[in-house]
Amino acid sequence: MTNYSAKQVHLISRPSGMPSHENFALVEVELNPPQEGEVLVKNLYMSVDPYMRGRMRADAVYAQAYALNEVMYGGAVGEVIESADSSLQVGDIVLNNAAWQDKFLAKANTVSKLQPFDAEQLSLYLGTLGMPGLTAYVGLLKYGEPKEGETVFVSAASGAVGANVCQIAKLKGCRVIGSVGSDAKAQWLLDECGVDAVINYKTCDDLTEALTQAAPDGVDVYFENVGGDHLQATLNVMNPFGRIAACGMIASYNNAEPAPGPNNLMLIVGKKIRINGFIVSDHGELRDAFLAEMIPWIQQGKIKSRETVIEGIDNAVDAFLGLFSGSNFGKMVVKF
Amino acid sequence: MTNYSAKQVHLISRPSGMPSHENFALVEVELNPPQEGEVLVKNLYMSVDPYMRGRMRADAVYAQAYALNEVMYGGAVGEVIESADSSLQVGDIVLNNAAWQDKFLAKANTVSKLQPFDAEQLSLYLGTLGMPGLTAYVGLLKYGEPKEGETVFVSAASGAVGANVCQIAKLKGCRVIGSVGSDAKAQWLLDECGVDAVINYKTCDDLTEALTQAAPDGVDVYFENVGGDHLQATLNVMNPFGRIAACGMIASYNNAEPAPGPNNLMLIVGKKIRINGFIVSDHGELRDAFLAEMIPWIQQGKIKSRETVIEGIDNAVDAFLGLFSGSNFGKMVVKF
Repeated sequence: MTNYSAKQVHLISRPSGMPSHENFALVEVELNPPQEGEVLVKNLYMSVDPYMRGRMRADAVYAQAYALNEVMYGGAVGEVIESADSSLQVGDIVLNNAAWQDKFLAKANTVSKLQPFDAEQLSLYLGTLGMPGLTAYVGLLKYGEPKEGETVFVSAASGAVGANVCQIAKLKGCRVIGSVGSDAKAQWLLDECGVDAVINYKTCDDLTEALTQAAPDGVDVYFENVGGDHLQATLNVMNPFGRIAACGMIASYNNAEPAPGPNNLMLIVGKKIRINGFIVSDHGELRDAFLAEMIPWIQQGKIKSRETVIEGIDNAVDAFLGLFSGSNFGKMVVKF
Repeated sequence: MTNYSAKQVHLISRPSGMPSHENFALVEVELNPPQEGEVLVKNLYMSVDPYMRGRMRADAVYAQAYALNEVMYGGAVGEVIESADSSLQVGDIVLNNAAWQDKFLAKANTVSKLQPFDAEQLSLYLGTLGMPGLTAYVGLLKYGEPKEGETVFVSAASGAVGANVCQIAKLKGCRVIGSVGSDAKAQWLLDECGVDAVINYKTCDDLTEALTQAAPDGVDVYFENVGGDHLQATLNVMNPFGRIAACGMIASYNNAEPAPGPNNLMLIVGKKIRINGFIVSDHGELRDAFLAEMIPWIQQGKIKSRETVIEGIDNAVDAFLGLFSGSNFGKMVVKF
């Protein structure tokens, strides 16, 4: 007998500054059996990502804001447990955009059936093989345009996106420098991912000086996940005609009041720098090329993935909040 | 009998903050008659441009810093008054990079013979037909990539570069908004240059609000000459996939201490904005295309030029300083 009760996380107020548990509520709802064309999906893993903070603002810039008192959404991997559509069978594994709930009803054509190359690692489809991996691929290759032998600097370098940027850049023949917030993350990048130099931004005295030492030939490509002091330091050290792929600026996401930006933006002119903001959802056309390169890289052990797995939807909000204190190591996922 | 004495303006100390007369000295030197391959040139007009402020810094980013106790340089138009090279005759008009002096000796191949289409307007070769005009053309068309019907916002819109950007954008079928610092400049842009809306940034209360009103459909292309609050306001009003051609940021040139930048750079990501810093000297390959379009536009009265002419090398420093208080109206030139 199928159990139709589901747990959902709702946004119940818009955070000012750092979000807290008060902004969210765990709500139990009773679903209906699937109607013609629908499936009932039990989520196995959901993703928490920094971009979700942006959707909690009334004036969300990335996409439509999360509605108050409704379930939030985002990437998840689930299993079909009841089907009223011929395209999907019970037991099929589906990628979906219905995170923040352990079970949901959906039209069959709003989820994508996966044919996982390794059933042990379904969560990879939320990380290295999913949105963060594609983000790394698009940002680095399309907007960073690294040439062999050039120096690539990656902020939030051990994160879900950053770790993929670092490793793809190494595979493309670049010298790679990462910035992270802990020595353990630094060590992992050096030992496991082959990164050439790592800066712990929390313990270095001066980011410009640290970057100057780590990048004796200057920085040609910057993959921007952080903003603020990281952008300022990079502009100081960047070479003429440098490229910045601007993926995110997590340093500012929880500012209740906007904080001033870098004081050296004139270097954009003097150094003839190009900056491209981008959002991965505009670049679906690169997904096939991405998978064609990424799956073999993973199978051959050339791309390593690191995850922090939090158990249970009751802890999903904690998992999300942890992104901003750096308590994740690699991709943060919630396992149901 | 040729007079070989020349006046030169030397940089004698590096300004901290706004430059003043104390940073410069007028020096009289005695030149030699030209040797084989050289010419003696008497300058007729010299250019003063905001970029020269950057070259006064020890850590100049645009190009090599001006040396202390030597003559500065920059664009000028002069007449050959003595020639020891067969390629140039006495009376030839030459574009040269030997501003800040009323007479100079040069190898003949370091100056370019002009065949002015209108001898009355030699100074145009320092403005609309010269470096500022080409800067406008390259920045707007190569980096701004305006499409017909799009909205283009230009800061310092009545300046040597800005006024050309505005008019070229109109000729390309765009809606054009300019920002200026006086009502007279605003009126000239509206009446003579066909600009659609003008903001006086000195008298408007809030630049974001003024720009929102002036650009009801948002801004697609921003030609950046100013930086600071102009960049911040533009990011607020920019459309997704907007392009910023970053030509200069004059608001910051005379800061003794670096000033913080815009507080909303995250919009670069959310709106998928592209920023290209550029310097015209990298784009000589576009000069022929530029002249092929610009000369007919001027002849047909489709591009208007406005100049502020200061007389005499003794007043060249004042002309330069005037750029930062907006005392120029259009291109600032010094006539000898």
